[in-house]
Amino acid sequence: MKTTASPEILSLLPIDRELATPLQQQIYDGIRNAILAGLLRAGQRVPSTRALATDLGVSRLPVLTAYDQLLHEGYLEGRIGSGTFVSVSVPDDALRSVSPIQSRRSTKHSPSRTARTGRGRHLADPLPRHRDDGGFRPFRVSLPALDQFPHTIWSRLVARHARALTPARMAYGDPAGVASFRAAVAEHLRTARAVRCEAEQVLIVSGSQAALCICAAALLGRSDIVAMEEPGYPGAHSALATRGAVIAPVPIDHEGIQIDSLNALGSKVRAAYVTPSHQYPIGTAMTATRRLELIEWATRHSAWILEDDYDSEFRYVSRPLGALQGMDAHERVIYIGTFSKVLFPSIRVGYIVVPPSLRDEFLAAREALDIFSPTLYQLALTDFIREGHFARHLRRMRALYLSRRGALLEGLAAHCADHLTIHNADAGLHISTLLHDGVDDRDVVRRMIARGLSGAALSTCYAGDACQTGLLLGFGGSDETVITGATRVLGEILRQGA
Amino acid sequence: MKTTASPEILSLLPIDRELATPLQQQIYDGIRNAILAGLLRAGQRVPSTRALATDLGVSRLPVLTAYDQLLHEGYLEGRIGSGTFVSVSVPDDALRSVSPIQSRRSTKHSPSRTARTGRGRHLADPLPRHRDDGGFRPFRVSLPALDQFPHTIWSRLVARHARALTPARMAYGDPAGVASFRAAVAEHLRTARAVRCEAEQVLIVSGSQAALCICAAALLGRSDIVAMEEPGYPGAHSALATRGAVIAPVPIDHEGIQIDSLNALGSKVRAAYVTPSHQYPIGTAMTATRRLELIEWATRHSAWILEDDYDSEFRYVSRPLGALQGMDAHERVIYIGTFSKVLFPSIRVGYIVVPPSLRDEFLAAREALDIFSPTLYQLALTDFIREGHFARHLRRMRALYLSRRGALLEGLAAHCADHLTIHNADAGLHISTLLHDGVDDRDVVRRMIARGLSGAALSTCYAGDACQTGLLLGFGGSDETVITGATRVLGEILRQGA
Repeated sequence: MKTTASPEILSLLPIDRELATPLQQQIYDGIRNAILAGLLRAGQRVPSTRALATDLGVSRLPVLTAYDQLLHEGYLEGRIGSGTFVSVSVPDDALRSVSPIQSRRSTKHSPSRTARTGRGRHLADPLPRHRDDGGFRPFRVSLPALDQFPHTIWSRLVARHARALTPARMAYGDPAGVASFRAAVAEHLRTARAVRCEAEQVLIVSGSQAALCICAAALLGRSDIVAMEEPGYPGAHSALATRGAVIAPVPIDHEGIQIDSLNALGSKVRAAYVTPSHQYPIGTAMTATRRLELIEWATRHSAWILEDDYDSEFRYVSRPLGALQGMDAHERVIYIGTFSKVLFPSIRVGYIVVPPSLRDEFLAAREALDIFSPTLYQLALTDFIREGHFARHLRRMRALYLSRRGALLEGLAAHCADHLTIHNADAGLHISTLLHDGVDDRDVVRRMIARGLSGAALSTCYAGDACQTGLLLGFGGSDETVITGATRVLGEILRQGA
Repeated sequence: MKTTASPEILSLLPIDRELATPLQQQIYDGIRNAILAGLLRAGQRVPSTRALATDLGVSRLPVLTAYDQLLHEGYLEGRIGSGTFVSVSVPDDALRSVSPIQSRRSTKHSPSRTARTGRGRHLADPLPRHRDDGGFRPFRVSLPALDQFPHTIWSRLVARHARALTPARMAYGDPAGVASFRAAVAEHLRTARAVRCEAEQVLIVSGSQAALCICAAALLGRSDIVAMEEPGYPGAHSALATRGAVIAPVPIDHEGIQIDSLNALGSKVRAAYVTPSHQYPIGTAMTATRRLELIEWATRHSAWILEDDYDSEFRYVSRPLGALQGMDAHERVIYIGTFSKVLFPSIRVGYIVVPPSLRDEFLAAREALDIFSPTLYQLALTDFIREGHFARHLRRMRALYLSRRGALLEGLAAHCADHLTIHNADAGLHISTLLHDGVDDRDVVRRMIARGLSGAALSTCYAGDACQTGLLLGFGGSDETVITGATRVLGEILRQGA
């Protein structure tokens, strides 16, 4: 098999053992960048993992890991009996159009800087809030492990900046946010999420809800159409419809939002709201092919893509996916994130990364909304990121959530398997499950609440008629023992309802 | 003169020397409440100050002070040679309509509780922001004395709550705000601003700009007309026009917004934005007569009054005026305030007091905007108010600003009197002045900026053609020496331009 490893691909993979970046990541980045830059074309065969490992002089494990991720994301596809290829369905044009940006920015934005280190990613807030059911009940969707937050460090940083509050920090601040904080966010997004941005493109806002309101104010007029994934995040509706825009639900399939359906909406579509890294509520990741098709669609229609990158930080089955924004050479993507879930909701700090061409509109919309965000938390967060606490917290939480997710999957297998199918448990803070046809998921959730549980009904995430019923079960906010007990109760509820 | 003191009016003035409330305030409240309740009618004569003092068995000073305030606010009017009367122009109907509410609430909301103690009022943010000229230059409009803020106390409270941040305080909070904080704000507004409200009516938001956006979302549809005072606060435009509403500038006179012009706008007017306690930018206080006419107008048209009570806290020529909201028996007033100026702008905490009938709409609009406000500052502010630091800070600032205002008035008299007329210096953090006809105030401001000063041009506050030019000169942010020096520079600038 060694012969399939062409010299070309080796030149694209400048593996450097001296770098802190793990080998698997260097390999992943090299191949991905080569595909995006058009250096590896659709249908082109890539070396086998064994051959590439030999040629690179590395063990096979990092190559296997990198290929697995690339297959998962849809950059590569396997053909039985004949090897591994660059996906045929990746549109050639979309790929080639990325290349100038890639090379233009390559000096200041080298692959190792864009490499996703698996640390320090963010979670936005896709929670269809249940203001009254809420609290800390088991299965509460999108609730992080608040008791595991490093309180002592955080309160020390807050107290430090509260003491040091100078008149300049007390006065009206920059509507875009505190400069040092924007720089820290931009750096984090570049390295952890492969977002291509400078600090000037970052606007600090009070969370993803405010971010969506600002998007609506900056981009949408009356009767404009906004496409939304169906099923999708209900909280986005109210914000995006602010200016009289019309929400058009667009079905998703296993690759992501359906481009045919998008095209069918015609030319009045101004924007599409998507959750490419972890579809809310279903959980699937948008494939590379679909991402490129979506960017191509937006470019052709002069439409905008609103990327809500809400909880791709916590990924359990493969490495975290890079942001859609990082693949966009046409500056059609507005990228949204928040610290609500990765730290805690009442911090009320989020951000928007806007294309340079839109900066003035967004700044005006942001200022009209509430002028600027409180300064104290921006300063404390800057230190929290710069001093490494943020990355450390994320690492700890990833291990914690992996264990809690494991308890939930085991509990569901033991107690609920006859009534409920796991649909997706790849990432984030909840598992999406499907109920049997004809089971009313809202009724199940009502009975769960009556028994002291939380959770959300999948059918509430449909703007139109729900075509599936199921349960969204959060596992972030409860420990393993509680989760196991809760699955036992859920099993009883499901048996009673059957 | 003793005979004019009717027994009726004495029964309306249950003076109690045991109360902490000063006598002058008890007298003021008693007469004002009697007028609002229709117990004293338009045109009715009231006792002379000497007679009333004798009948009440108090010295004349508190009676003089109370009458002076009532005359200033337009509840009373003097007729040369014949005494003092309840204003004839106060509309009878408007007065009588207040009475049921007054009596309905009298048990839980006694006059001494509604009494305005002269402490603890708020400032909203009516600053036409000058993001780049800004900083701490002399004459910067709406800049408080940030260096005089009690940093040590504040940082202790913030640190206390940062340390005590429980999971419940870190999770998603009530969109209306932290309950204890809303109760503290409601109590403060009742006693300091004569706002009639319960904690349930208070929504905590991130400042007056956000408050106006929420008003627009809750109340205004496309093509609705919103009346705004002309000249008025430019920052309100962008927020109120959010949903496609049309801004209609309505001229003001020396009593406030002109009702005839409001009526001329017809029935499509959904709301009127006003600054009754200290008109921005001019500085006049809306008279009681005009307030009642405005409420009557709103009731007749089913329109809403948006009361931005922005800096009535700091009043130098008479006691602070009660809020318009407190005179409204028809629940047409939405009351807006913020801690930006009374504490510091980067705190980003404000509030809306909504009529009970509108609570659901406002809560939905508030939640759609950015879900809820950060919890930490709400908790710290609750303690800051409850422990008396807020009232103490306001008292200190009132004395400080009085002295800074004095320095500005003296400096203007000494250096600028030939070129500039003081228009209003009654209240707040700036003085409004008029320039001679034909002098371009924007040009003067440009030259002020070039000389290291700040300030704002009156003509920028007109939505239509400016009919007056002048300078708004802030005195909150600089000490007396700096202010005196700045007036000397301003004198040079004005002489050069003449």
